[in-house]
Amino acid sequence: MELLDAIKYDENGLVPVVIQDCENNEVLMVAYMNRESLKTTIETGKTHFWSRSRKKYWMKGETSGHTQEVSEILVDCDEDAIVCKVRQVGGATCHLGYRSDFFRSVDPQGRLILNGVPKLFDPEKVYGS
Amino acid sequence: MELLDAIKYDENGLVPVVIQDCENNEVLMVAYMNRESLKTTIETGKTHFWSRSRKKYWMKGETSGHTQEVSEILVDCDEDAIVCKVRQVGGATCHLGYRSDFFRSVDPQGRLILNGVPKLFDPEKVYGS
Repeated sequence: MELLDAIKYDENGLVPVVIQDCENNEVLMVAYMNRESLKTTIETGKTHFWSRSRKKYWMKGETSGHTQEVSEILVDCDEDAIVCKVRQVGGATCHLGYRSDFFRSVDPQGRLILNGVPKLFDPEKVYGS
Repeated sequence: MELLDAIKYDENGLVPVVIQDCENNEVLMVAYMNRESLKTTIETGKTHFWSRSRKKYWMKGETSGHTQEVSEILVDCDEDAIVCKVRQVGGATCHLGYRSDFFRSVDPQGRLILNGVPKLFDPEKVYGS
């Protein structure tokens, strides 16, 4: 079966996509695709998403140049979630300069704390101030 | 800041949660929590979710005994996605008997194919026929 037809898109036509580093399996980000951005991702080999807040397509890295090259796409048993393994160009996924969007943990009291991972770039130099 | 207050729940009061194997970082499943199931997950150290289809709380493993013991919780930069690293009791997350819900890949033509990973248990023996 074709992936595009198998996916059960939600009431907004979207499916959550987990972006995972193909080298060490670190989760880099979670975002959403609709049928068209999923099709473009398969065809171009670069991740494309639907932005729920900006209501537009975007290619990861279109501003920063930090694109994601797809190495593998996985689908879950319910066909309502996707894992996309990628090579992250530039090394950093997060617009704040961290390798992963998930640079904070939760301490035993349930509070957010920094993981202590270093920033790989200065956001002002990549995106402008 | 408290995780429970930091999270930006969606219009249905939910946040997507990526469940990741704490040993090898494999993505085991994607599911949803609301504020109450997230609170219970933090307090008990076992993953609890909100089922969108059944509209009820569930603890992973409540039927099979294959619970998930939480080792770390991570939050992304937008506070609208969570990664939960777990030790999967029984070794298999998927109700079909696979280690991960993501036991299928997409081939170069965009079609779903089995990864070739073995089943770890017979679903009929765990859940009844």
